Amino acid sequence: MKKGIAILGSTGSIGTQALQVIADYPGKFSVEVLTANNNVELLEQQARKYLPNVVVIGNENHYKRLSERLADLPVKVYTGKDTYSQVVQMESIDLVLTAMVGYAGLRPTISAIESGKEIALANKETLVVAGKLIIESAQRNRVNILPVDSEHSAIFQCLVGEGINKIEKIILTASGGPFRSLSKEALRRVTPEQALKHPNWDMGAKITIDSASLMNKGFEAIEAKWLFNLEPEQVEVVVHPQSIIHSMVQFEDGSVKAQMGLPDMKLPILYALGFPERIKSDFPRLNFKDYPNLTFEKADEEKFPNLLLAWQAMSRGGNVSCILNAANEVVVKAFLEEKLPFIKMADIIQQTMDRIPFIKDPGLEDFEKTDEESRRMALSFL
Amino acid sequence: MKKGIAILGSTGSIGTQALQVIADYPGKFSVEVLTANNNVELLEQQARKYLPNVVVIGNENHYKRLSERLADLPVKVYTGKDTYSQVVQMESIDLVLTAMVGYAGLRPTISAIESGKEIALANKETLVVAGKLIIESAQRNRVNILPVDSEHSAIFQCLVGEGINKIEKIILTASGGPFRSLSKEALRRVTPEQALKHPNWDMGAKITIDSASLMNKGFEAIEAKWLFNLEPEQVEVVVHPQSIIHSMVQFEDGSVKAQMGLPDMKLPILYALGFPERIKSDFPRLNFKDYPNLTFEKADEEKFPNLLLAWQAMSRGGNVSCILNAANEVVVKAFLEEKLPFIKMADIIQQTMDRIPFIKDPGLEDFEKTDEESRRMALSFL
Repeated sequence: MKKGIAILGSTGSIGTQALQVIADYPGKFSVEVLTANNNVELLEQQARKYLPNVVVIGNENHYKRLSERLADLPVKVYTGKDTYSQVVQMESIDLVLTAMVGYAGLRPTISAIESGKEIALANKETLVVAGKLIIESAQRNRVNILPVDSEHSAIFQCLVGEGINKIEKIILTASGGPFRSLSKEALRRVTPEQALKHPNWDMGAKITIDSASLMNKGFEAIEAKWLFNLEPEQVEVVVHPQSIIHSMVQFEDGSVKAQMGLPDMKLPILYALGFPERIKSDFPRLNFKDYPNLTFEKADEEKFPNLLLAWQAMSRGGNVSCILNAANEVVVKAFLEEKLPFIKMADIIQQTMDRIPFIKDPGLEDFEKTDEESRRMALSFL
Repeated sequence: MKKGIAILGSTGSIGTQALQVIADYPGKFSVEVLTANNNVELLEQQARKYLPNVVVIGNENHYKRLSERLADLPVKVYTGKDTYSQVVQMESIDLVLTAMVGYAGLRPTISAIESGKEIALANKETLVVAGKLIIESAQRNRVNILPVDSEHSAIFQCLVGEGINKIEKIILTASGGPFRSLSKEALRRVTPEQALKHPNWDMGAKITIDSASLMNKGFEAIEAKWLFNLEPEQVEVVVHPQSIIHSMVQFEDGSVKAQMGLPDMKLPILYALGFPERIKSDFPRLNFKDYPNLTFEKADEEKFPNLLLAWQAMSRGGNVSCILNAANEVVVKAFLEEKLPFIKMADIIQQTMDRIPFIKDPGLEDFEKTDEESRRMALSFL
């Protein structure tokens, strides 16, 4: 039987790669749902190629245009704010790939978990913001959360079969981004164009800026804390510019397990879609002839204070990660629009984290309120 | 309940380290059997400290002396050729650590498997010589073979929980030994003293020479073939001088898993003794500050033709690995006694492999005959 897949955010970087992977294995998967916010053209192309049951266009202004274009196909077209959370419940869906950008992934993810769907989680903000809610819901509903990030997929792969063996710490590897070797002084003058040139990974704009500022690594630390039930001090970051070791787990006996490979998101995508089966692929293989040196260095928290902000959010708990995420979305947008220098981003996030009221045990509504207030406040600091 | 342990070869490098590990966990293990060939003094000390049920001294000439020395203890003292195979069957034994050197481990290992004991396998010659017999017997008796070699332990750890997922290849890492950077010319003049200085691992003399000649890596390749059911072309060697990555598995999806740690045999020993539980240890931890560079290079088969001999033995099958092992024991002894230059060792092994009659499906007796004839022939070439 084919595995029924819903892809939330199918026109983004992860979504399009997931569809390429799915196209390579015609017997394995059936595409049930595709969603996008604004990209009508690509969503139409995808609908024609993969013939899902349903497509959802988030922005209601595009609904009419998309409906007309898809009128000749047996594909239902929906739109509107609450539709994501409804379509993920469709019976034909086995696994929901949450690949939309930002905070919008939270409600549909919770809804999918509550309907007992496996989650391939590529929307990291979901876990960053509301990790506790999501993980508790997944445990209650006995649902696997399969991380699609290369780092968390690496850790997940290292933990398979380890049963009750305890994690001593995890070591998240970081490429260090395009600004790893710049001085603090030089960081003052970097442009969005420079920041968008990631050395190893080809990703969307938001996450590429987050990689340059190491906020992405901070988010991954928070994500890991929830996914693998860790204390902040059990999460370590090591800069590994070649991005060959995707992350590591150190167990209580002192043994370290690592997952490695060429930097290619298709591998963690395929792993999550196929789990527990590893599906044979023809992806290019790691060859040590091309990587005779793997190097490791300390992450520089002085140059990249976003790391400190992330650990601060982990330690404080409650709604603080939500503030971190919301403020970060605002400042990254401002940086991309050349309204804010690179090094000012962390300052504004910290100020927002200092001022928004702390909520110890936030629910969904609290997160939505915190998110909105944090954005407003961060904007006011610009 | 404590796990009952028999250690065959308790006075050797692995045996003594295993006892140190056991001493660290007084609640976990009970030492049931200790054996040694000649080292009466150390065996007596170990018997006094660990109070096993039985000790066996292999060399019958030492029996009387050992018996007298242990007369005040409630420890049975045995000797004689067949005793090993009998004592491993004792009901109080759960796991047999086969840590004796060379071919002598074969019969006791088979006997232990047939009595349903778990095997912690540190005697690599056993698998090299008669891998097929051992693995088939282990499968028939549903017995775990837990490798104690750091390389095979690494692979075993990477495979835990992978279920039916297929191995594409394994990558055995090799330190490259003390002569890695010597020219072929310089290899002509190396002495036993130089060969005994291994860069990373502290081991017995025989295995240290095997490491310098890369025969150890060839043996490990053959061992891996049997342990993990591989074709010769699925086994690859990569020289990794820091010995931090202990070996790797590449799966059919292209993902590579690695196990890492400081070079310390106590870790794979503890893993095998405790499996499936990872027991918390205070062994020194890997710190990338001390290992900022991990390097990889191709193994030089021209300088170290033993690698080619091992792949030849794997491909031919039958009793050829047995010839390889027997001839190697003879030439290593000759080299250690300064009767044979380092680079001549491979020549004599090859000649022996060319001349001893091929047996396609050898049984235990065939192996014993092949072993004896190969030794005699290799000696005649000296």
